[in-house]
Amino acid sequence: MFHGGDLGAASRTFPQARRPWVDLSTGINPRAYPVPVLAPAVWTRLPEPDALTDLEQVAATAYGAAAGTHVVAAPGSQALIQRVPWLLSPRRVAVLGPTYGGHAPAWTAAGHSVETVASLADCAGAGVVVVTNPNNPDGRCLSAEALIAAGAGLGPDGLLVIDEAFADVMPEISFAERLADHPRILVLRSFGKFFGLAGVRLGFALTADGDLAGRLRDHLGAWPVSGAAIAIGQTALADQAWQAATRAELAASARRLDALLGGAGLTVIGGTSLFRFVATHAAEPWHQRLGACGILVRRFAEQPQYLRFGLPGLEAEWARVAAALDTCA
Amino acid sequence: MFHGGDLGAASRTFPQARRPWVDLSTGINPRAYPVPVLAPAVWTRLPEPDALTDLEQVAATAYGAAAGTHVVAAPGSQALIQRVPWLLSPRRVAVLGPTYGGHAPAWTAAGHSVETVASLADCAGAGVVVVTNPNNPDGRCLSAEALIAAGAGLGPDGLLVIDEAFADVMPEISFAERLADHPRILVLRSFGKFFGLAGVRLGFALTADGDLAGRLRDHLGAWPVSGAAIAIGQTALADQAWQAATRAELAASARRLDALLGGAGLTVIGGTSLFRFVATHAAEPWHQRLGACGILVRRFAEQPQYLRFGLPGLEAEWARVAAALDTCA
Repeated sequence: MFHGGDLGAASRTFPQARRPWVDLSTGINPRAYPVPVLAPAVWTRLPEPDALTDLEQVAATAYGAAAGTHVVAAPGSQALIQRVPWLLSPRRVAVLGPTYGGHAPAWTAAGHSVETVASLADCAGAGVVVVTNPNNPDGRCLSAEALIAAGAGLGPDGLLVIDEAFADVMPEISFAERLADHPRILVLRSFGKFFGLAGVRLGFALTADGDLAGRLRDHLGAWPVSGAAIAIGQTALADQAWQAATRAELAASARRLDALLGGAGLTVIGGTSLFRFVATHAAEPWHQRLGACGILVRRFAEQPQYLRFGLPGLEAEWARVAAALDTCA
Repeated sequence: MFHGGDLGAASRTFPQARRPWVDLSTGINPRAYPVPVLAPAVWTRLPEPDALTDLEQVAATAYGAAAGTHVVAAPGSQALIQRVPWLLSPRRVAVLGPTYGGHAPAWTAAGHSVETVASLADCAGAGVVVVTNPNNPDGRCLSAEALIAAGAGLGPDGLLVIDEAFADVMPEISFAERLADHPRILVLRSFGKFFGLAGVRLGFALTADGDLAGRLRDHLGAWPVSGAAIAIGQTALADQAWQAATRAELAASARRLDALLGGAGLTVIGGTSLFRFVATHAAEPWHQRLGACGILVRRFAEQPQYLRFGLPGLEAEWARVAAALDTCA
């Protein structure tokens, strides 16, 4: 599986590329939340259970979770994607795709029978349905009604997993606030993408099912999250002013990138304000030409007609992207 | 399961205790490795696969692993204790105990049949044997010969897990350098205890079995370790001068603590230079009296005749411990 953000691999593919890299291969906010000053105890002490609980409460508020929703912190949403499949007996799993490539292998590794399906209508008979909402890489959004119907179709032992890794930029579509009425739905949230702090490794699972939450907590074990992640997460998730300003700024950056892409003849057909999804018959040549310019974008081995562009951050990066798109167009 | 280091719980048990707490309830070095200045990318970027590989190579050298030994980094050795049981089909597991309380529940949760045994001679017929070496809390050490014999007794499909969480203070007993000849042995190492950085969440598994290492890596998933843990781990594990000085300093601190304990009539019957193991018929009264003085030590629900003392760090902490032992004796 090829992930974004691997500049070591990119440097081997493009040994002559201009440096430093402008890494547009992920959907991570390039203008990160400012890391607060960290107390020495963040590093030296075992993270306190009470501090983890406090973090989870701040996350519940930030994500708009209703009372009664259980929130479980983990060292990244990928860690949750790896762990959740082991909580359920082997069954048929439908992954709504194409989507983030981490889901299907994690369910397969835990002994489930996994099928990628093109629509929720194709999920009948599955014991688990996995959706990413908004979807990565195309930005497709599912309505709450469609999700509730999918969850209801699973039966009492089923589970609908909603990966909301990019939902921070569109909180109106998050299912977190509705979970209390739907115990067979699990929402996954990523801290690192919207806050631009992917190296911190922090993510959350939200569910109204206390038994499921408890088993997930047991599965993760004691001290699942670093002291730094707890401290940074508490500060950032409570900072609603930064979050609101960042949503507006990311939306403006996405429009700016769309204009640049459009000027180069590249059509944006979807995405979120953390990444833009482009359809082009020249995806591979574009990937090569931009790579040679030191600009790394994301291609998809199984969808060779698409590219995904993350957002530049610094003005110097915007200028390099504009110049490269202009030169190569 | 009650772990050390939980000052929230301690404050509820001892609401009138003097503050700040002198926390002797863990085996974590109180004089931590100085955290280096961290580059912003440590926080903002997804940890690079190449950086993780570099960390694992530094760890291999630090632990004296021979060529051909696979090293797998994880967010704490507890995360490895949680994950390894899922790599094996259900079988009989013998945990040499009493020992660290995290092992048996992790194997039970993964569907294995777990028995705590008092000696390696009682492990016949087990498919997995788990030992902690040096042992926590009593410091008992097993010889390489005994470990090799235990591993050989398991048969070709068996696994001997050696938890070396406290082996940094006695590198001469580590099995890491012998692993190349023993593919059915897995060594676990903890970064946080010896380096005094338990909040970082970093640990390692070492094995000559490439298939086992690969499955463990798959199980942990992408980006298992934070950017900060990679950066700090690389620096600290490469700093052999600090490690040597710290071993000597911890040994001296352990002798100093033994003298204080002996002066109070408490007999040290084992431990390592990161913690001291005390046998006393008055374990519970001592726990209560020290707790009331704001000094938290570790007791054991199933071994009520013992206490474990971690090391004080600051001179002010030594003075408070000396005064409390003197007052209460």
